[in-house]
Amino acid sequence: MADPSTCPPLIPSSITTAYSKISPYIHKTPLLTSKSLDAIASSLDPTAFLSDNPPTFDSAGSETNSGGSRDLDPTPKVKLHFKCENFQEIGAFKARGAFHAVMRLIEEMGLEEVRRRGVVTHSSGNHAQALALAASTFSIPSYIVMPKISAPSKIAGTRLYTSNVIFSGSTSQEREAVVQDVIADKGAIFVPPYDHPDIILGQGTAGLEMEAQFLEEHCSRGGKTSGFDAVITPIGGGGLLGGIATWFADKPGTLVFGAEPSFEGADDARRGLREGKRIEHVKSLTIADGLRTPVGVINWSIISDRKKLEGIYAVTEQQIKWTMRLVLERLKIVVEPSGCVPLAVVLFNREFRQMVAQRQMGLEKGYWDVGVVFSGGNTTVKAINALFAEEEQEQQEKVVDERREGKVGVNGTKEVEDVAG
Amino acid sequence: MADPSTCPPLIPSSITTAYSKISPYIHKTPLLTSKSLDAIASSLDPTAFLSDNPPTFDSAGSETNSGGSRDLDPTPKVKLHFKCENFQEIGAFKARGAFHAVMRLIEEMGLEEVRRRGVVTHSSGNHAQALALAASTFSIPSYIVMPKISAPSKIAGTRLYTSNVIFSGSTSQEREAVVQDVIADKGAIFVPPYDHPDIILGQGTAGLEMEAQFLEEHCSRGGKTSGFDAVITPIGGGGLLGGIATWFADKPGTLVFGAEPSFEGADDARRGLREGKRIEHVKSLTIADGLRTPVGVINWSIISDRKKLEGIYAVTEQQIKWTMRLVLERLKIVVEPSGCVPLAVVLFNREFRQMVAQRQMGLEKGYWDVGVVFSGGNTTVKAINALFAEEEQEQQEKVVDERREGKVGVNGTKEVEDVAG
Repeated sequence: MADPSTCPPLIPSSITTAYSKISPYIHKTPLLTSKSLDAIASSLDPTAFLSDNPPTFDSAGSETNSGGSRDLDPTPKVKLHFKCENFQEIGAFKARGAFHAVMRLIEEMGLEEVRRRGVVTHSSGNHAQALALAASTFSIPSYIVMPKISAPSKIAGTRLYTSNVIFSGSTSQEREAVVQDVIADKGAIFVPPYDHPDIILGQGTAGLEMEAQFLEEHCSRGGKTSGFDAVITPIGGGGLLGGIATWFADKPGTLVFGAEPSFEGADDARRGLREGKRIEHVKSLTIADGLRTPVGVINWSIISDRKKLEGIYAVTEQQIKWTMRLVLERLKIVVEPSGCVPLAVVLFNREFRQMVAQRQMGLEKGYWDVGVVFSGGNTTVKAINALFAEEEQEQQEKVVDERREGKVGVNGTKEVEDVAG
Repeated sequence: MADPSTCPPLIPSSITTAYSKISPYIHKTPLLTSKSLDAIASSLDPTAFLSDNPPTFDSAGSETNSGGSRDLDPTPKVKLHFKCENFQEIGAFKARGAFHAVMRLIEEMGLEEVRRRGVVTHSSGNHAQALALAASTFSIPSYIVMPKISAPSKIAGTRLYTSNVIFSGSTSQEREAVVQDVIADKGAIFVPPYDHPDIILGQGTAGLEMEAQFLEEHCSRGGKTSGFDAVITPIGGGGLLGGIATWFADKPGTLVFGAEPSFEGADDARRGLREGKRIEHVKSLTIADGLRTPVGVINWSIISDRKKLEGIYAVTEQQIKWTMRLVLERLKIVVEPSGCVPLAVVLFNREFRQMVAQRQMGLEKGYWDVGVVFSGGNTTVKAINALFAEEEQEQQEKVVDERREGKVGVNGTKEVEDVAG
């Protein structure tokens, strides 16, 4: 990998330069909006929309039969702008960092040298596919070390771009040992998944691009705006959040937030900020499998800077699943669990919602424009089934219970008297 | 409903007029492309891409390790352009016809009269939601008759736009009786789901819009084209296919095809064309639940015209599920089973593929630009789980069998020796 000391500094203009390099090779992914998700996020209690009996909207999208629970909670008002990196090359934002890293290597060493040596990484996920794609684009060999137990779909996805998938044991020691073998054997250059300036700057292009799209959309409608009020993005190793916080570092009107799963301590970044030091080890099997890693060293130096990052919030496994279901059923798009975590914070994290509502008091605009990064969409029907099988089971049991109590008719339908007009 | 004798004629210019009326109220849905689905559709055997061990692509997207099976089949070459009506208002193209029908009623009777009487229909699906939305947009009351056994999600979806959901029994007699009651009681105006010129012209705007998007995209790249070589769309009652065939009727360079499920005789349009007469009754429980109805009378007059429709092809339940899985996992979007039927024909119907390959012989361009309509996306996690549960079961049994024979390792992963580079 390019020597960090020779890398461009971690400032917005370096992201602009990175973008001009990689933009011919990546998708300009859409920035989507959804009136119904805005209404849900801006309602008193978004969980009310999860049942089979959601509130009724009038044609303007206002909620007309709000449940009235949680009366004491302040309600944030938001317009959401979804950056759909699930439609990115290889199905995740990781393509940005990988292309930037590979192109910087070529710049520093020359294409022939990089082709002779090849690149290597270990990953069971999106970084593996991203690096394999970026390398194959420049006819550079890539060696991808994957745990033997990786999901067949991830192995297949990686093998679309390289014939050099090499299996290892599952522990980091075992994986790193195989990487060392490849380096010794082939002279291959190691490209880490997040803890490197070139990767961070590459991922930061997602922030540049979504802001430009927001401003363009706003201008075409004749409005005046200085940009997003807030942007929220997942944090695992901190490549994406580090890059996006770097992009918005000189835009004080846009607050940057991170979003993490809380399961089994995967909220290491949040806890680290509270304790004032980076947490080095995480061992969580959260369903947000892209966010199981601890924050990297360089990444930590960015996100622990209060001028760059406003805060980090965490959500439960259940909240992630609720969000994935809403995204799938209402937006009709597929976002993997890790990618759903920021929206889960907006919808279900009470602390975040109260914070937004408080900051909005007296605000002339009356709502926040919030950029929400859907970081990836790499999942399978099989994984979705496994994820929701348990929940379905619980729900069916609930219907059976209610039917016993005479509350619902066959097929879980409410009785006619309840609803006929 | 507006008297058909006063309706605009079924010609392209009437669709242009319809579009100018409804376009402020509907989404201009995206026309997506996918290099990987083009490669799959243009490969010798698309079923090879369904396993966990797909062929390897080189960076240009050419298949490099084709299985070599089915050597005698000709291979069609296609570029696919997906019209994403799953992102339409209410999640399906039905919004187009419903808005057009309601706006024509207003034009003919005056807004006050339509508001006084209201509109009524019976539907358990997307037409119900579409009519309720269109009516509520103009503050017109809508009465939606739904079978008591409708999916809770469909009932909830309809109740987002009307408080007048009225339940009935499941047979058409029972449903129609309740509609008659509403007409007698309220003077409400019946808006049928497909068998009416205003509905057909409204749905035809999908054809107008996708052609304009294709031409615009092509022009912006400096290319010359006269339009799609072919367009393929689902056929249930024939509103969508009738409208699209009407739009392309004066463009002989674009062939229009219909796509149906074959399960339990749901391919009534295909069989009707062969027998030379409309088939009036269909009783199928195909998973493509939007396509269970027989073709309407006016719709039949369009699709049985060889100058307007080139042909209809049918696919199996398994082929529809394969397609839905590919769309979900590769395009990262949610398309309901009915909406997957046209792509299933392109990927898996041997007769269609042979026909395309034969017509392409000697063609200078070397491939067809094919417009594929994804008609809707209204499904749920629960429905997806139910759809694929059986298949997962079969697949797991297969893995267990293969493991017994020593073919695969734990987690279904192929052994290291097979693939290490």
